[in-house]
Amino acid sequence: MDEVIKHIKENRNNYVEELKEFLRIPSISTLPENKKDMINCANFVSQKLKEAGMNRVEIFQTEGHPIVYGEWLGAPSKPTLLIYGHYDVQPVDPIELWDNPPFEPVIKDDKIYARGATDDKGQMFMHVKSVEAFFKAAGSPPLNIKFLIEGEEEIGSESLETFINNNLDLLKCDAVLISDTSLYEPGVPTLTYGLRGISYLEVEVSGPNRDLHSGSFGGAVANPINILADLISNLHDENGRVTIPGFYDNVLKLSKKEKENIKALHFSEKKFAKSLGVSELQGEKGYSTLERLWARPTLDCNGIYGGFTGKVAKTVLPSKAIAKISMRLVPNQDPHQIAKLFTKHIKKSAPKSVKVTVTTLHTGYPSITPLDNPATIAASKAMEKAFGRKTIYMREGGSIPIVTVFVKKLKAPAILMGMGLNSENLHSPNEHFDLNNFHLGILSSAYFMKEFSS
Amino acid sequence: MDEVIKHIKENRNNYVEELKEFLRIPSISTLPENKKDMINCANFVSQKLKEAGMNRVEIFQTEGHPIVYGEWLGAPSKPTLLIYGHYDVQPVDPIELWDNPPFEPVIKDDKIYARGATDDKGQMFMHVKSVEAFFKAAGSPPLNIKFLIEGEEEIGSESLETFINNNLDLLKCDAVLISDTSLYEPGVPTLTYGLRGISYLEVEVSGPNRDLHSGSFGGAVANPINILADLISNLHDENGRVTIPGFYDNVLKLSKKEKENIKALHFSEKKFAKSLGVSELQGEKGYSTLERLWARPTLDCNGIYGGFTGKVAKTVLPSKAIAKISMRLVPNQDPHQIAKLFTKHIKKSAPKSVKVTVTTLHTGYPSITPLDNPATIAASKAMEKAFGRKTIYMREGGSIPIVTVFVKKLKAPAILMGMGLNSENLHSPNEHFDLNNFHLGILSSAYFMKEFSS
Repeated sequence: MDEVIKHIKENRNNYVEELKEFLRIPSISTLPENKKDMINCANFVSQKLKEAGMNRVEIFQTEGHPIVYGEWLGAPSKPTLLIYGHYDVQPVDPIELWDNPPFEPVIKDDKIYARGATDDKGQMFMHVKSVEAFFKAAGSPPLNIKFLIEGEEEIGSESLETFINNNLDLLKCDAVLISDTSLYEPGVPTLTYGLRGISYLEVEVSGPNRDLHSGSFGGAVANPINILADLISNLHDENGRVTIPGFYDNVLKLSKKEKENIKALHFSEKKFAKSLGVSELQGEKGYSTLERLWARPTLDCNGIYGGFTGKVAKTVLPSKAIAKISMRLVPNQDPHQIAKLFTKHIKKSAPKSVKVTVTTLHTGYPSITPLDNPATIAASKAMEKAFGRKTIYMREGGSIPIVTVFVKKLKAPAILMGMGLNSENLHSPNEHFDLNNFHLGILSSAYFMKEFSS
Repeated sequence: MDEVIKHIKENRNNYVEELKEFLRIPSISTLPENKKDMINCANFVSQKLKEAGMNRVEIFQTEGHPIVYGEWLGAPSKPTLLIYGHYDVQPVDPIELWDNPPFEPVIKDDKIYARGATDDKGQMFMHVKSVEAFFKAAGSPPLNIKFLIEGEEEIGSESLETFINNNLDLLKCDAVLISDTSLYEPGVPTLTYGLRGISYLEVEVSGPNRDLHSGSFGGAVANPINILADLISNLHDENGRVTIPGFYDNVLKLSKKEKENIKALHFSEKKFAKSLGVSELQGEKGYSTLERLWARPTLDCNGIYGGFTGKVAKTVLPSKAIAKISMRLVPNQDPHQIAKLFTKHIKKSAPKSVKVTVTTLHTGYPSITPLDNPATIAASKAMEKAFGRKTIYMREGGSIPIVTVFVKKLKAPAILMGMGLNSENLHSPNEHFDLNNFHLGILSSAYFMKEFSS
């Protein structure tokens, strides 16, 4: 093991150079114009898995973007670890707010800046390099390895879900290792045991059959933007609670132990507000910020548009207005049921003067992992070794819907060993990844393989 | 006079060909990229005024777009008529909804389709042609003529207001004739005696200092789109009344006579709803549709945007959201005071979790013309002659803010002899102008000059 650790430490610069190459590929899964980049990126991943020592590497075509699979099963008496990650990234808009072009990685203060740096190329790549280190410095890894790297995480992982259902034997494993979450704080080893789910919908309000002059018609006919604003506004009550009937019915309450854990973190709401540049936080009454983020469902508009959105003024009463609305869900809410409740509620709330269309864009289940299984214990020990500090347990506000699929279908615990930081602008301009955490992640990954193998 | 009418009737086709040429110039005043087209269009108007017989034609440069002035003062003992119009047009978006390119005029069923056809190139051009007809068929017009054609009507007429203030002598007149409004119904000669004013503002709600991941942050920080929706929603109460304190304070109530006039029109709300493709109308409780449009102030969102507005889904909690909001005002509301009340109210209503910036984009005063002055009576008779039916009186929901300036500064009545139709998609895709009304407008204009001269 010492040789492996030494090898990893000696190769820091090489790892960063390879990561740069990976980040240069604009693998934006949501935009049709990047389809070719997605294929290039899958090929890149495939090549890296071969170089890392996988003796079977395959690119599976899907209805969406390709899935890259790699395996090495040379330790028959040992457990099998499935490593999941994604090579697709979020769009880059608003592009004008980036200090550097999003696909030309730049290093400043030991941080690497590029779209996908922390979400998820940088984090996924850590495991490729730790596996490679075992082959190069110790002959082979101490357990069986399967890599499953998809290209649709940012758009709902639909193809992967089908793929898992069709390939249960191929993917059989004893634990799933995922690095796509964040450390609680820089320097604090963290295991994430809960994720929020999501229901993401689009609401279109249509009024008059054409755009109208707001003078000649204003006041006599429903304005779709105003109606949409009413509908959105009425989705929360004065306590910040979502008003959709049945929304909270299946929400799992935080246990006493979890509440104590959260308190022990001494989270500073003041610092958090300052880091976001707001003078006051806002959320559901009766809960702390961490409780709101980790254990309470929410509803946010992710986008809205309608009417004249150019410079200066145009006096139009638009024919329609559209909002993209997502709800983050917690165990045991069902995203399909929530989407139904939302749709029913919105349609019922709308006045007869407009037509309302609701489309479900994607859904994902929330998840929660028990803390007492061997994989979790091994991961906790591994991170402690790499960081030199006790590992803490947290939940996460974001969603990795595929985690529930892994847990349900493969019947294996999901280990969320995230090395990102919430301050790293994932999904925003100037996304970056702290290279110290990148290197600690490679070490943690190697230690985990060793721990989990015995 | 018979010769003049005959000349007009014989030249129908020529007039339409010339109008087409006028409509081909994309004179969109609000877009910087059309600045050169605005200059070309002013030159075109200047040329047409010369051809019509004006013996002094000048293009006045302004801080915005040029103003075209033309005069013929060869009837010293007769009244002077100032004809106002505008050569600028609205933007064309959404361009994909036009059946034909907006600046390539097409005639279908005696209607001419193009941006600016009815608002206001087609209507303004009627008077150029009626004046020309007097010169060609009767030697000269029966009164003195001044043309004042501006290029900023669609963006607030700022330069024109300054120009009027600086040129009171030049513009001295006995009446102002304007064709930029609509007939009550096809075939019904109509004089518009009241216009709504406007306060047009932009509201920007800023929350976090960057776009955030809606999973990692959703629920713990104010979402600017949701807040903007709240603010917009709260601007109306459940009776469709605007909630801004003081908003209705100076509203002039409809007189008994006006209410009777409105009733006598037998306006069909059902037909109106059908023409807009809505199953139900919506507006301030306690008022009929015509009362809402003509005599009640309103508040409409003209545009809204924030967050991800592309296809599919992006899970962003945006850093800001923007709405364009206009209020149509009635006599005696003051648009500057209303803008102040709006700003104060919105800022007071916003939670501390966001910053709200309000910018006034433009304002215009409402106006009302007394019905018993000689110019109104002459106009009523003139239209009756052209149409062969009794003229009716109406108000109009739209705004021509410059009308109040004319009335106040030049101390002359404003005659709104509109030949458009509300169904002609002004400010929308497929704007058009009924050519029958174009020709009736030229006749009405000629009859008016004759009537008013004696």
